Amino acid sequence: MATKITPRSEDYSRWYTDIVQQADLADYAPVKGCMVIKPYGYALWENVKSGLDRRFKATGHVNAYFPLFIPLSFIQKEARHVEGFSPELAIVTVGGGKELEEPLAVRPTSETVIGHMYAKWIQSYRDLPLLINQWANVVRWEMRTRLFLRTTEFLWQEGHTAHATAQEAQEETMRMLDVYTEFAVEDAAIPVIPGRKSESEKFAGAVNSYTIEAMMGDCKALQAGTSHFLGQNFAQAFDIKFLDENNDLQYTWTTSWGVSTRMVGAIVMVHGDDQGLVLPPKLAPTQVVVVPIWKNEDQRVRVLETVARVEAALHEDVRVHVDDRDEYSPGWKFNEWEMRGVPLRVEVGPRDVEQGQAVLARRDVPGRKGKGKVSVPLDELAERVQHMLSTIQTDLYRRALDFRQAHTYDPQDYAEFEEAVSEGFAYSWWCGDADCEAHIKEDTKATVRCIPLEQQSDKGKCIHCGGEATERAIFGRAY
Amino acid sequence: MATKITPRSEDYSRWYTDIVQQADLADYAPVKGCMVIKPYGYALWENVKSGLDRRFKATGHVNAYFPLFIPLSFIQKEARHVEGFSPELAIVTVGGGKELEEPLAVRPTSETVIGHMYAKWIQSYRDLPLLINQWANVVRWEMRTRLFLRTTEFLWQEGHTAHATAQEAQEETMRMLDVYTEFAVEDAAIPVIPGRKSESEKFAGAVNSYTIEAMMGDCKALQAGTSHFLGQNFAQAFDIKFLDENNDLQYTWTTSWGVSTRMVGAIVMVHGDDQGLVLPPKLAPTQVVVVPIWKNEDQRVRVLETVARVEAALHEDVRVHVDDRDEYSPGWKFNEWEMRGVPLRVEVGPRDVEQGQAVLARRDVPGRKGKGKVSVPLDELAERVQHMLSTIQTDLYRRALDFRQAHTYDPQDYAEFEEAVSEGFAYSWWCGDADCEAHIKEDTKATVRCIPLEQQSDKGKCIHCGGEATERAIFGRAY
Repeated sequence: MATKITPRSEDYSRWYTDIVQQADLADYAPVKGCMVIKPYGYALWENVKSGLDRRFKATGHVNAYFPLFIPLSFIQKEARHVEGFSPELAIVTVGGGKELEEPLAVRPTSETVIGHMYAKWIQSYRDLPLLINQWANVVRWEMRTRLFLRTTEFLWQEGHTAHATAQEAQEETMRMLDVYTEFAVEDAAIPVIPGRKSESEKFAGAVNSYTIEAMMGDCKALQAGTSHFLGQNFAQAFDIKFLDENNDLQYTWTTSWGVSTRMVGAIVMVHGDDQGLVLPPKLAPTQVVVVPIWKNEDQRVRVLETVARVEAALHEDVRVHVDDRDEYSPGWKFNEWEMRGVPLRVEVGPRDVEQGQAVLARRDVPGRKGKGKVSVPLDELAERVQHMLSTIQTDLYRRALDFRQAHTYDPQDYAEFEEAVSEGFAYSWWCGDADCEAHIKEDTKATVRCIPLEQQSDKGKCIHCGGEATERAIFGRAY
Repeated sequence: MATKITPRSEDYSRWYTDIVQQADLADYAPVKGCMVIKPYGYALWENVKSGLDRRFKATGHVNAYFPLFIPLSFIQKEARHVEGFSPELAIVTVGGGKELEEPLAVRPTSETVIGHMYAKWIQSYRDLPLLINQWANVVRWEMRTRLFLRTTEFLWQEGHTAHATAQEAQEETMRMLDVYTEFAVEDAAIPVIPGRKSESEKFAGAVNSYTIEAMMGDCKALQAGTSHFLGQNFAQAFDIKFLDENNDLQYTWTTSWGVSTRMVGAIVMVHGDDQGLVLPPKLAPTQVVVVPIWKNEDQRVRVLETVARVEAALHEDVRVHVDDRDEYSPGWKFNEWEMRGVPLRVEVGPRDVEQGQAVLARRDVPGRKGKGKVSVPLDELAERVQHMLSTIQTDLYRRALDFRQAHTYDPQDYAEFEEAVSEGFAYSWWCGDADCEAHIKEDTKATVRCIPLEQQSDKGKCIHCGGEATERAIFGRAY
């Protein structure tokens, strides 16, 4: 089990793929670039979904479903959108045995078809804001793929909203970035930097794109969610108009925002270690695994009695699984569940039965030979388990934040900058010029990950050209 | 609002489409044959999903996700499967700007690609049974479409299981038919007849197909869910083998089973009336709507105070919505929410405030002028509402069952049979011969909907040919 995982220090990329496959998160599909999300990985995604969906509904959004197929002509209506997405399209040319008159794109994202419907549904200011989210599969043809991080087909949610004013749309854009930040921090225990994308990195068709950027275990950046202020670009392309309170016909202002199954890859890379997955308790499909330990039939009966009590005490409040399989040893099971990232293990052996206790072992505390283990009286177990899960959640976040801070640099000149982005993030003044950005990318493979929302009010000199800069940006190599 | 709905007696088909569109369940997509599921319709589908998903998990199934694209060669591996599905395929021939070497089918169902993965995942009897479900979109090219009932793309769940023995697979097939029956009866309040499909009506590639058949408001049949015993057909086509306990290599036995967004169409057609939708409380997105009634500002304040108390009393146990919009009259709101099928309305007017009560009005009781309304003291409201919702749920089922029974006939000869299937279901002896079935279809447009699982032990004469028959079948015209 755990021994088959390539150490991170040896080959981070193989470590990632080993974990994803051996922890049964996903597998390669027969079609190139596609993946199969296996039950354990899907259960993790279901928890991501429900954490996000709950927050979308709490902020007034409703779900709907729009079609998979989009007429090619729709995608061509917004100039930058077609430029951005055309090279990635999968195209249906035959349906029901016949060549189609107009080929259909398999949706790479749904701004266009939703724009078409919104134009039909929106008549007056009373129809606004329109706040709809969709959970769906999308397809973007990829040559170099990696499970969860970059696949031809992936699952996501895409929110699409329409508003009467630019200000409301801008507020919505930021509100959803906040929702993503809150989810990442609270549920996924992933520290993120909310910020604006540079012109060259923004969504094809957006006025402004915002992102939450996270640092992975190899110090590379991953864009974990995006929220776009689309201005009137799609409203004009699709004629989404409304009569305002003065009876004047106006274009609406729209936004879109999305988080995908990529988030699962981020969870693996931020928290995982050389033993395998480490899952944040709030999202773990199994939060607590109970492993009974015995040597003979007499012990077995008594231990399983106590295990049944443990399960009964826990199952209402936590997702608990009892691994009472006979064919595997306790040590084998420890490895197995550590590899699968279950946050907390409860061990019950004959001595624990005698003493009315159980042993708790945290997945996130390194060193398995007794370190990080505590014995807990059975009548305190439920409370202690809850408390420990909450501590693990906080500690995972703290550890990831410390890691990111330790690998975020403030280089003083371009030579230091080049070193910084080879080892982590550089947080540097940038003049905002696209040429500077392009040169930096050419020199270092690093890009502007985001211009953080939080900025000091002073000024500085661009780390590349030395020109005047009013904002600092996060630079890094990215997935 | 309600007045725009075509009466059922005038044109059932238009009545259906009017309701689906005016109650905001769905809309036509720009691509022929596709639909947009609007937020209200999607909320209904989400409740269908959660009622089914809960039951799948309780019977030991887990969710996963398999790819949208299937190599054409996969579909050709099972002879009857390719025959059944080829004419309906949407085919991707271009990806990432290039002509594909092997065209890809957009999944019409996933037996083939899942079979391919199962062959990889299953090695030994210890890997069995494998019990996986998938929530997904599928595509079957359709020329004549109807919202929810028949669309090129639809949403569904498809369960795919693999077993060590024929008996286990057969038991699974029947277990899931039971799950569907229970869901239809208990949650959707739709009486269904569980039965076997005839040879000509079974799934392409199945040994035996089972169905739950329901009668719609126009007395036509609708197949509301199917469960297939696939024998070793797909195991042989995809080489899904396992080492049994004696170390012998054997083919597995597989099943598949599905329920789709069609279920939403069934709910509309079974319960709806000329005022619009009638939703079963268990699935209704809004179970109770509260409508405040006032004439002046003084009344308004007092009524809204009471309405806030009503909402507080109800919102923990029921899905309640307060319609306090100023721009619409109470009468307009009554019509609107009746059209949208909300099971129970709570009215609060100035007199109710004085008397410490509220008025409850059931959607399913015909006649709106006072009939079916009761006044309930506020301190009993929560309990009475819960009780009434449960009564409505039972009454809807009972009414639908009575309707089906009143339109199910036991014709004594073929002339009576022809009349019976023009008016509803005929429950008749059938010799089992495909020719008989074909002649009946030619004569009457009716097909064998199913051979009910429940059969008397006697024998009879085939209603068409007079030959010996050991089973009775349900015949009817179908959607």
